[in-house]
Amino acid sequence: MQTKKAVKKTAVSAKKPPKTAIFVEPVNGGVTAAAGFSAAGVKAGIKASRKADLAAVFSDRPAAAAGTFTTNAIRASSVDWCEAILPSQKIRAILCNAGCANACTGDQGVRDTAGMAAIAGVELGVPQKSVLVASTGVIGKYLPMERIADAMPKLAAALSSTAAAGTAFAQTIMTTDLAKKESAVKITVGKEAFFIGGTTKGSGMIHPNMATMLCFITTDAAIDSALLNTAVKRAVNKTFNNLTVDGDTSTNDMVLVMANGASGVSVKGRGGAMAAFEEGLFAVCNDLCKKIAADGEGATKRVEINVTGAKTEADAQLAAKAVATSNLTKCALFGNDPNWGRIACAVGYSGAKFSKQKMSIRLCGLEVFRNLQPVAFDHKKAHAQLKKKVVSIDIDLGLGGKSATAHTCDFSYDYVKINAEYHT
Amino acid sequence: MQTKKAVKKTAVSAKKPPKTAIFVEPVNGGVTAAAGFSAAGVKAGIKASRKADLAAVFSDRPAAAAGTFTTNAIRASSVDWCEAILPSQKIRAILCNAGCANACTGDQGVRDTAGMAAIAGVELGVPQKSVLVASTGVIGKYLPMERIADAMPKLAAALSSTAAAGTAFAQTIMTTDLAKKESAVKITVGKEAFFIGGTTKGSGMIHPNMATMLCFITTDAAIDSALLNTAVKRAVNKTFNNLTVDGDTSTNDMVLVMANGASGVSVKGRGGAMAAFEEGLFAVCNDLCKKIAADGEGATKRVEINVTGAKTEADAQLAAKAVATSNLTKCALFGNDPNWGRIACAVGYSGAKFSKQKMSIRLCGLEVFRNLQPVAFDHKKAHAQLKKKVVSIDIDLGLGGKSATAHTCDFSYDYVKINAEYHT
Repeated sequence: MQTKKAVKKTAVSAKKPPKTAIFVEPVNGGVTAAAGFSAAGVKAGIKASRKADLAAVFSDRPAAAAGTFTTNAIRASSVDWCEAILPSQKIRAILCNAGCANACTGDQGVRDTAGMAAIAGVELGVPQKSVLVASTGVIGKYLPMERIADAMPKLAAALSSTAAAGTAFAQTIMTTDLAKKESAVKITVGKEAFFIGGTTKGSGMIHPNMATMLCFITTDAAIDSALLNTAVKRAVNKTFNNLTVDGDTSTNDMVLVMANGASGVSVKGRGGAMAAFEEGLFAVCNDLCKKIAADGEGATKRVEINVTGAKTEADAQLAAKAVATSNLTKCALFGNDPNWGRIACAVGYSGAKFSKQKMSIRLCGLEVFRNLQPVAFDHKKAHAQLKKKVVSIDIDLGLGGKSATAHTCDFSYDYVKINAEYHT
Repeated sequence: MQTKKAVKKTAVSAKKPPKTAIFVEPVNGGVTAAAGFSAAGVKAGIKASRKADLAAVFSDRPAAAAGTFTTNAIRASSVDWCEAILPSQKIRAILCNAGCANACTGDQGVRDTAGMAAIAGVELGVPQKSVLVASTGVIGKYLPMERIADAMPKLAAALSSTAAAGTAFAQTIMTTDLAKKESAVKITVGKEAFFIGGTTKGSGMIHPNMATMLCFITTDAAIDSALLNTAVKRAVNKTFNNLTVDGDTSTNDMVLVMANGASGVSVKGRGGAMAAFEEGLFAVCNDLCKKIAADGEGATKRVEINVTGAKTEADAQLAAKAVATSNLTKCALFGNDPNWGRIACAVGYSGAKFSKQKMSIRLCGLEVFRNLQPVAFDHKKAHAQLKKKVVSIDIDLGLGGKSATAHTCDFSYDYVKINAEYHT
């Protein structure tokens, strides 16, 4: 998914070809890639940097929508607002501000979230409860509601279905992010086609002060909200739930998906278009995860941990996430050090079951560990491979057929700098 | 426990005074503070630095012994060796090397650990299985057994019961540690007295390459090994299990305690001498934890997280350990930033139950958070307090009467430097 060239068109269900040929292919774009969606981003005066900080995505018709939300017991009122509404068949818009997380703000915060939805509803001519709200930024500060109200007409007027408008949305929701993050796929089902596109922000899954992980995905497929809810949870479990920059789970995280049916393609039941929809949703989520990992605070490289040979998928996740979260492993990767001992140690304390005889570790493709003992390898070559922008760690647990992939980045001086020098 | 002056003699069981007056007081010394123990450390040529690297502690009579061990599924053969033997009534010595962890070394590693015990047993004239073995240092390298055998007579000849010999032991087992770590208490029971003294190493609980958390404690109390085993597990659960530098659990961690009865004081059942013994054991473990936290890799300050008002002790531990392990919180502490949002966020994702209304956070004594909302506080004063060498975070969960304390340090550039620049 990194580039168009990197991923060929892949037929779904290769073993048992469906009657209708189905293809999933990456395309340019983000939240406006799918038909019937418009977006915009404007300056409301919330960010200290005075950059654009208020964004909206709008569907020209009621959309099915579903989401996943932070598990943090201390969470922003925007998370509560969305979770109370979803899944729903009647969502029209998402309003997102950056620069203020509106978390730990008590009753005032709850009123302000409802106010955000009300202001957008009035301006867009849709019910308050058809507007989802997301906030990201500093914890413990109140939203400047007057400024948001003042900026809303300008935001509504700027809504556009162009790719540039989608990009404006992606740029507006950034906080400590250095790069905008968009991804989209086109899914062809026989002679019909639909799109799934999205954007995310967060320079870490988890940054309670300045950067929270938010993700917004739109599709013009027609899908029931309950089915969409299942598909979203499945995709997020395989992607965003295996992403980490620093191990701190934020108060504002959410992934929201809107499906408005504008393509005329209906997704139902199992197999066929549904399998293609799930594959496309996974592809967009997975690509956005890679983009967050690559832009992790202080990151000099992106790291992908692929665990195979697990007895259960839960075991594969435990091992992949333990390695992805290990500070020692990530410092070694920053230093281009093929330090397999730290990787093995993390697998050891992960709680995942593995075969002591068959468990093996490969670093950038080179086998470095097997049978709980070191394997001779070319240190110079490993050191050189570790200097690349994308590094892979492959761990075979040697027990079964289940697998999982975790996404992370290395751990550099700049991570400490960014998080020590930012003062509340 | 930091200095003699800091802790007054405290009567045990203040509410119900025992017939015999009992006092626990800190004294100088380490593993040789208790009667009947001798120790030494010599150069065997294991460390690259050519510093002393082979150490032993010896009991002049069979001692009861018990231990706690790393939960890492990948663990050194020395951990297996000790766990198979303990608890025991017949332990005579601990042989510890630094510079090579003898972990991930397969069958050869298992033979080498047994060889360590055999070499020490022959030289000291005690059974092989009365010798406990510990190793710390680089993972995946084999022990230089000939050098160890060559150095053993010199080590045995150097054994001494002086405080200086205890300190030599403490210095010999250091790896990336910058300071030796010893602690001892004298426990007076009426007209009798006994001692508990120990030493630990580790510049982090957990450093799979260069520094593993090892702790050795000796006492001249007489206590059954099964009772000692219970007391050790209880003390470790309240101290070392709440200590973290970087969240990575090592392959070699262990705490070993030997009780040889040389004081003539017998510790049995509940209350009286047993309560004093447990208080003393906790005091030594807790003091050694503080010393590890203060010497954490790259640490500029020690941090103590006290959680009160918990419904269960497990909840208190969850909250205290989540805050102690939060990279974001620890970076903020390095930057002297009173960033309560990161602390609240960590409590939120810890899994601990708390009252949303009553939960409060104090930083260096200043209340900064209550009722899930910020409390106005003097930022300048907080910033100044955070520059001290010891920083406290007090969290009241507002639900019950249980509590726990976690020990950690801040997270600085030097942590990354130490762990990125060390090459395998």
